[in-house]
Amino acid sequence: MSLLVVGSVAFDTVQTPYGKAENILGGAATYFSVSASWFAPVRVVAVVGEDFGAKEMEVFSRRGIDTEGLERAAGKTFRWAGEYSGTMNEARTLDTQLNVFETFAPRVPASYASSEYVFLANIHPALQLHVRQQLPGARAVGLDSMNLWIRETPDDLKKVLAVIDILVVNETEARMLSGEMQLWRAAAALRKMGPRIVVIKRGEYGANLFTEGAAFSAPGLPLDEVKDPTGAGDTFAGGFMGHLAKTGDLSESNLRRAVIYGSVMASFAVEDFGLGRLLRLDASQISARYREFQNLTQFDAG
Amino acid sequence: MSLLVVGSVAFDTVQTPYGKAENILGGAATYFSVSASWFAPVRVVAVVGEDFGAKEMEVFSRRGIDTEGLERAAGKTFRWAGEYSGTMNEARTLDTQLNVFETFAPRVPASYASSEYVFLANIHPALQLHVRQQLPGARAVGLDSMNLWIRETPDDLKKVLAVIDILVVNETEARMLSGEMQLWRAAAALRKMGPRIVVIKRGEYGANLFTEGAAFSAPGLPLDEVKDPTGAGDTFAGGFMGHLAKTGDLSESNLRRAVIYGSVMASFAVEDFGLGRLLRLDASQISARYREFQNLTQFDAG
Repeated sequence: MSLLVVGSVAFDTVQTPYGKAENILGGAATYFSVSASWFAPVRVVAVVGEDFGAKEMEVFSRRGIDTEGLERAAGKTFRWAGEYSGTMNEARTLDTQLNVFETFAPRVPASYASSEYVFLANIHPALQLHVRQQLPGARAVGLDSMNLWIRETPDDLKKVLAVIDILVVNETEARMLSGEMQLWRAAAALRKMGPRIVVIKRGEYGANLFTEGAAFSAPGLPLDEVKDPTGAGDTFAGGFMGHLAKTGDLSESNLRRAVIYGSVMASFAVEDFGLGRLLRLDASQISARYREFQNLTQFDAG
Repeated sequence: MSLLVVGSVAFDTVQTPYGKAENILGGAATYFSVSASWFAPVRVVAVVGEDFGAKEMEVFSRRGIDTEGLERAAGKTFRWAGEYSGTMNEARTLDTQLNVFETFAPRVPASYASSEYVFLANIHPALQLHVRQQLPGARAVGLDSMNLWIRETPDDLKKVLAVIDILVVNETEARMLSGEMQLWRAAAALRKMGPRIVVIKRGEYGANLFTEGAAFSAPGLPLDEVKDPTGAGDTFAGGFMGHLAKTGDLSESNLRRAVIYGSVMASFAVEDFGLGRLLRLDASQISARYREFQNLTQFDAG
């Protein structure tokens, strides 16, 4: 089934202990789309500037991503610069230039209206709600957010949380939004706000899934080489939602599989700068890494 | 098979967001022993002062722990005071009084000499080596350490690492000791220093096991209530080594089970202050929680 994502497309400049990449294609909607494209047909709603050229467009077309919703506006594309050090668990933002993203008013093309799976990547919650309302027939709507909106626009955020199915946030955001320090309590509080499925991303520590009365924990894969964590969370969300859209199955066991596929995709994303590794994949590598997660977590009865 | 532990016995004063406990029985050897006593016969080598009374002794005897190696010295027992806040992942030390622990020279009683499983809890690495040398027949020797010895006595630490089988450290220590930021690389570097089995404790995130060519990841259990994380790492080590001593089996699949039993015991430890929860256990609760870890981690083929 088709999967629609709305979010940012950006040019990133990233510095890590392993090198530097300048003005490379990034943004939440980009990482999400490329990741999800390995599973299901993806449609993107985003805005880019006049500096977004054929080379960038080709990344989307090569992965078969529908870009009818990719609006081109006068001005420059959103730009972000950041730096990672030490364990690289968190980026230090060096520069943010919103550019065309500042006045982004997402429009869902008529051809996207029937989308059954939807992901509202991190943008202003009022815009997320606006998109949500244009997709009344969606079977499952996922959402990501960030500390800025939790702090600055909590009422808008609560409104959109009430009309989504799946919340995908990192653990700091989960604690901030719920006011609870213990993850289990945080998840329970978040589920009361609307989403019946809560996925908490924990960076190198993996991800947790919370549903009605059940918890699932997926580890991070211990990797030999982590070059650039940028976009790992959005890549995770892409694999997760992509698998759900591919299978059309929201059962507990399939949600768990989806968390593993999300983890698989994120584990690839960090192995190279930007989208590098995600564009060099093949299906057999995805299956092999899924099996690595099985090997990593398997243990017998006590 | 019998399991010997050498380490600290202490009186702790602990403040957490959930309350305060003063001068309660603690110390690495204590948490380790009580935890391991649910699996195998435990022998303890440690030192206490004149303030260590019948009430404290009863904790050991009640759990059937052999205290022939518990030396009583003139002066006061080791005392530690600390505070946890926020996510409670790390303690802030408020006070340390080494007291009788300052001049501790561990002596292994003749009746302990045949111990097959040994755990050298966190003490000066020269003392760990001294104990190791008194137990030439040991089948598996585990060791914990801390930032202080990694920084101050690296040569002594390297000497004892060369003659042990299992290293059990937290992830900050693993990174410090190996000089590697990526966990997989850190584990590989640590294995080159001697121990063929490396277990890395990650607090609420669980634990990782690294052996020849294999990695295993156990999650932390999302708990409704975490009251006091003191001793969780030593409790983990007690469950881990206890299961190995009980079964006498060092195969990969049994090491994985041991990591889960360690995680089970640690998940109980944090639910109450001090040893409270570990002394209120029964075997069926341990089995039930092992199954909770199975439910938490299970997923089907992709």
